[in-house]
Parts: sequence; structure tokens; C-alpha cells
Amino acid sequence: MIQPLRIEVICTGDEVLTGKIVNSNYSYIAQKLEDHGFTVQRGVTVGDDRAALLAAFREAGVRSDAVIVNGGLGPTVDDLSQEVAAQAAGVGLELHEPWVARMEAFFTARGRVMPENNRKQALLPQGSEVLDNPVGTACGFALTIGHARFFFTPGVPRELFRMLEGEILPRLLQRAGAPGVIVLKRFHSYGLGESHVDQMLLGLEALVPEGRLKLGFRAHYPQLETKLTMRARDAAEARRLLEPAEAEVRARLGNFILAEDNQTLEGVVLELLKAQGAALAVVEDFTGGQIAARLAPQPGAEAVFRRGIVGRSLADVMAALNLNGAQPGLTHSPELAADMARAAREQTGVSHALAVLVALEGTQEDVSLTGSIHLALAGPEGVLTRRSRLAGGREWVRLGAVEMGLDCLRRHLQGLPLKEKTDFEKEPPR
Amino acid sequence: MIQPLRIEVICTGDEVLTGKIVNSNYSYIAQKLEDHGFTVQRGVTVGDDRAALLAAFREAGVRSDAVIVNGGLGPTVDDLSQEVAAQAAGVGLELHEPWVARMEAFFTARGRVMPENNRKQALLPQGSEVLDNPVGTACGFALTIGHARFFFTPGVPRELFRMLEGEILPRLLQRAGAPGVIVLKRFHSYGLGESHVDQMLLGLEALVPEGRLKLGFRAHYPQLETKLTMRARDAAEARRLLEPAEAEVRARLGNFILAEDNQTLEGVVLELLKAQGAALAVVEDFTGGQIAARLAPQPGAEAVFRRGIVGRSLADVMAALNLNGAQPGLTHSPELAADMARAAREQTGVSHALAVLVALEGTQEDVSLTGSIHLALAGPEGVLTRRSRLAGGREWVRLGAVEMGLDCLRRHLQGLPLKEKTDFEKEPPR
Repeated sequence: MIQPLRIEVICTGDEVLTGKIVNSNYSYIAQKLEDHGFTVQRGVTVGDDRAALLAAFREAGVRSDAVIVNGGLGPTVDDLSQEVAAQAAGVGLELHEPWVARMEAFFTARGRVMPENNRKQALLPQGSEVLDNPVGTACGFALTIGHARFFFTPGVPRELFRMLEGEILPRLLQRAGAPGVIVLKRFHSYGLGESHVDQMLLGLEALVPEGRLKLGFRAHYPQLETKLTMRARDAAEARRLLEPAEAEVRARLGNFILAEDNQTLEGVVLELLKAQGAALAVVEDFTGGQIAARLAPQPGAEAVFRRGIVGRSLADVMAALNLNGAQPGLTHSPELAADMARAAREQTGVSHALAVLVALEGTQEDVSLTGSIHLALAGPEGVLTRRSRLAGGREWVRLGAVEMGLDCLRRHLQGLPLKEKTDFEKEPPR
Repeated sequence: MIQPLRIEVICTGDEVLTGKIVNSNYSYIAQKLEDHGFTVQRGVTVGDDRAALLAAFREAGVRSDAVIVNGGLGPTVDDLSQEVAAQAAGVGLELHEPWVARMEAFFTARGRVMPENNRKQALLPQGSEVLDNPVGTACGFALTIGHARFFFTPGVPRELFRMLEGEILPRLLQRAGAPGVIVLKRFHSYGLGESHVDQMLLGLEALVPEGRLKLGFRAHYPQLETKLTMRARDAAEARRLLEPAEAEVRARLGNFILAEDNQTLEGVVLELLKAQGAALAVVEDFTGGQIAARLAPQPGAEAVFRRGIVGRSLADVMAALNLNGAQPGLTHSPELAADMARAAREQTGVSHALAVLVALEGTQEDVSLTGSIHLALAGPEGVLTRRSRLAGGREWVRLGAVEMGLDCLRRHLQGLPLKEKTDFEKEPPR
């Protein structure tokens, strides 16, 4: 069984301390640790200040088993991590020649000469263990201060991510008496709330013995991420143990799973369209181009996303599609969306056209605002429609409508039913 | 002169500690304090855990003068702030009857009966001073623990914001020996980097005696926020002292100022269009509907934003505008953008049409990717064009192109020149 390590995360830097930038590195580190079965006990933020850093390092060295320090490894004078770490550990600094050579090679490869002040990045506290940084010049290192093992990491996100994954997590697992690997499997869904999915997956953890499988969630409306973490001797064993659990999640969440791991909904939709040799046009009113905007900037989108048609009022959308918008009593309806999708498909020569129309019910600018969504999808086999109501204010209705539009497209391209009741939908007004 | 208070911010809650949510409340609090002349010395994050909370409160009570605690005031069992605060202060809890009455009225006004567990929210440590929460049921309070004055605030952002502004900042200013007010003035610009603007505003703080004016920045690409904070006896004095400084900023940053205070670029553009009785159509390729998507969902946009035309390739945009896309050697150019803007204006019957075309130079998926932007604006007086190059990868080019499009529209509607060299632009390739 994994030993509960007392872990602390110390984030350094004036920009983070003063709130000029939101501290997303912290949440990244904490989530990554959670995914591997660890729990952070405390997060601390201090500025680029010698006394504050020293106090934070010393306190953490008393109270914790492992400490991850983020930031302060750069070449400038306000980067103090190595210096204060040495002071806290009661050792001197020494130049790490192999790292100087690494940095020089790094600059040479880019056709530049290393500036003199970069040498500072290779000055490490005596007795440090180097943590490799394959994507930058900041040298990570591990060092014992007081009772705790400290891991010093760069503030640049992609350098931090690589070092955490490749250098620090294996060492933490080793320290926790759980050598081996943790493999993470993620499922993304739309339409089911966290507590509902939690209920649907009841008993899942028990499928794998010895508490090796852990279930977790991360909700970011409108999507929910379901995470399985598996602890095993090696990657092959983890994959083997995960297999039945993954199959179970797929069986229980079924059509609601829209993507897995690093896939995105828009990426999945683009791949499906590409695989079917299809081309797409999108018609929008209230969402104002946001469905198109999820698809169009993706690499390779030019092959399949062909046309976005946006009008702010029904009459404008009708005009854009050369439809008669002057009909008396023109209101939002699935039938109208169907007419539009059909017209967009015919006029632009694409194989598939998606129309998403939203009628806001009321004008209030708060969370009580509700919207009804009228959606149609025209394809080679005909036209399908879906109607729904979402609440939560202007922004939530917009986000929900964009997601529902893309997800209906995904469902259709995968041969799944468009209509399946989600947890976010409201009943139609009486 | 304002006394330097040692201030600490303690954020509580498992969701923040484990990184499930990014701690934007922290950066909001820290920035708000900065805007009022205070500096946070340390940020601490702990979970919903009695021992961790108690330790954090006690330590902060030794090391700080003022402590802002966020979260843990809710009605559920894992909301521990009042209970642990009382323990740390060595006092009991007592029911605050006026707050119970407030909560009951709150529920009654919404046609509901107050659930019994909400009474917990009115259980405050003995000797607490109530901090009003006009928008929720969580009762804020101030209490002395050790050496420091603690201010307990709700985790719900809008409740926190109101309490910080209305209850806590005045008390902190009082404690700092600087009774009076701090007034914040903000300018938003596009196209100038932070260090450039800092240079342009050299000597600004000296315009107001006694160090009462403070200049600050917050960069969120592609926009930069320039902040003036003025300390004064009352709002009238602050406004009077700010006037010449504001005029100076407007004179020095000139046409680059796109909005002030709570205004947004898209909001300013919509207001200008509305005021001129104008209507808008937007033509996009690579930005894929994102210019439209900034404008369309705004309240009142249906009056002015009429049409978005999005095609992923030039041929698709040409087809959407009934232009001849089969011309040999069709490439991105300001002239082509002008043809499109003109066609969009004529075909949709709007007064103004904006066309923003982007040609990516290369296919690499990293920060070396550059894009050239070809922009045209057709209005009643004719067609204007602008050409530019941006670097920084797919996402930065996209964000920059969207911003440049909206900002050119703003400039034109305000009678300013479209072309003014920005810091982000690259020279054309040789």
C-alpha cells in the first residue's frame, strides 16, 4: 500500500503572489499528484523575497516529507531559489559543469551564444541531485532541507510538466514505498453531472483488488472528466488491469463518452468528418460563431470545415440562406432549424450541415435566464432535429448550446441517437 | 503615508487544495489589495481539515497584521471556518440572531423556507464583528486571532467581491492609518507591450504629490491593462487629483486606448455602432467565427451585429460571397479582403463590413509559426485596408488577428487611423 507522504507545494514569484497571473501551475501540480495517489497537505505562495523564501523553506522542511517548489530558477537577479535553498540546507553553491555544457549546446543548437548570466542557472546547492529539463535551460534539482526532500522546478509550464512527470513522480512513488507506475485513463462526457456519474460508476473501484484503482472527477462545464488511476508494477500490468475497468466505464456511460485521454470533442468531430470524407457547414444565431470557432482553427480543419453562417436574428439567418425571412410569425422551432440546415447543405455543397438556433426566454441578465435550443442536422440520409432547454444565464446557455451542437454532430457521425436526456436540461415550460 | 501591513491570504477547501479548481479567488483578492496600495506577504492554501486550518490560522496570527480567509462559511459539515476560528481565538460559538433573521428573509423573498442546516451559517465566534453579505447567506466576520485581525469571507466569487470592496478594504485602510479612499482608474490598450507603456508613462506618478498615485499593469495578451490608483480623503478629492493624471495617460497612449474601466473592446464597438445607427457584417477565414463570437452574444447585439460569414479556405469565403473563387493564383491580399468586405456590405445591406483574412506562413505547430493578416473595412465612405504580420504560434496569431480586427473597427468608428505600428507586429519577410 502507498505510504501517505505529507506533501507541500511552494509557488514563488511576485507575479503569482500579487495575483497578476492566476496560479494554474499550482492546480496542475496538485492534480497530477492526486492522479498518482498523493494528496497535497498545503499550498504556499511567496514572492521573490529572500526572507520570505527562507521562512517558507524552513517551515516546510519541518512539517512535510516532500516539497515541490515552483519558480525562481531563471537567470535574472530576482530568481533566488538555488541561493535560498542552499542557505536553508546550510550548504554552499557550486557550479554544475555538465549543466553549463548542456546550456551551451542548447544555445548553439539555436545558432546563438549563451549569455553570461545564464551560468547562474547551473549554480546548485552542494549535494543536489539534478532533475533533468529536456526542454529548457533551467536546471531542476532535489535537495534535503530539514526533514523533507525538496524538488525545485521551473516556472515555465511545459518545463514544469515534463520534469514533474519524468523526474519527480517516479521519485515520490519510490519514497512512498510504491515503486512501479501509475497509469491514468481519462473519459470526457457531456450531459451528465458529477454526482450522477459517480452513482453510475458505483462499485467500479472494487473491480480491481488491493485498492489499486482510484476513481476521480473534474467538472468543467459543460464537460465532465472521469479519471481512472491504476497503480501497478509496470505499464503492461497497469494496462492489463485497466482493461476491464475501462470496458465497464464505456458500458455504463455509453453514448455520453465523447472523447478519451487527450482527445477533444472538436478534434473527434473533425476526425470523424475526415474519415467519412465529409464536409461541414454550420448555421448559428445566438451562439454567434462559437461553434464554428471551436472547429475552424484546428490543424487540418480546412479539409472539412467549409462554411460558417452566422446571423444575430432569425431574419438575418434566413437572409443569409436566401430563405424567406419575411414570413409572418417567424419563431424558433426545430422545423425552422431543419429548413436552414437543409438550405445550408444544398447551397454550400457540403455533405453535412448543422443548424443551432437559441431563443432566450426573457431578458434578465442573471442565472435565471433560460434558453431553448432548436437543433437540426442535415446529412446525406436526411434531416434530424433535437429540442432542448437550458438554464443558468446567458453564458451557460451559450456554452451549453455550443457543446450540444458539437456533441449531436459527434453522435450522428458515430451512428448514435441524437436524443438522450442530459442532466442539464430543463423540462419545457408548462 | 500608508503603513505597510503584513497581510496574508488563506484559501480553504479541498477543491482548491487538490487543484480541481484553479484558485482565481486568490488572484482577485491579491490584485484588489495591490490596487489599494497593500501587498500580500504570503498565500496559503489548506483543505477542509480541522488540524490544517487550525495550524494555518495560528501561524498567520503570529506572523501577520491582517489575514483574509476565503471559503468554509457554507451550511454543510465540511464548512469549518467559524468553528476553527473560534478554537484558534479561544472563544465559543454563538448564534447571531440578526443574521438568522436576514437569512430567513432571504429565503422568504425567493418563496422558500430556510432549511434547518442554514442556521449553522449564523453561528459566529464570540466577539466577532459581522461583515455584511448583501448577495448571499454566508455571514462574513472579523475576529482577532493572536496578533492579527482576521477577515472571513465566502468562497462564492460575487459574494467575496462585494465583501472585499464594501467591508474589508475600508477596515484595512483604517488599520493602515490611511483613512479615506482609494480610487482605481483603468485603461485598456491593444498593440503596446507592458515595458513600452511603462516607458511612455515615465514620470506620471510624480504628477501627484506625496506618492499618492501608483501606476500598475496587468498584461493579458493581446490586451494590456494600465492601472492608476489614487489615495485621497474622499472620492471627490480622488477624482480631482486623478483628472490631470488621466488626461496625461490619454495624451500619451492616445489612439491605443480602446476602453476604460469595466468597458470591453467588443462592448465599445457595439456602442459605437449603435450610436451611429450602423449595422455590421464580419467576414473571416482562419479566425473561424471568433470575431463574430466576441460580438454576437453581447446584450443588445441583435440591433447591430447582423451577419457572420466564415469559410475555412479563400475559395469557401469567395463562394459564400458569390465571388469568383476559381481565379487562378488566388492568394491572400488586402485587395482581396477589400473585395470581400465590399461584397459582404452590398449583399447583406449593412452599413459596415469587416473582413479579416489570415495566411499562416508554414505548418509548424509551435511558437515559430507566423501569420500575415489582411484586413479590410467597407463603410459608407469607402474601403480601408491594413496589412500586418504576427508571430507566436497558431493560438497567438488567432488571438492577435481577432483583436486587430475589432480594434481597427473601433478606430475607424472613432475617426482614428487604422494603421499605427504595434509592438507585436513583425516586419514583412524579405
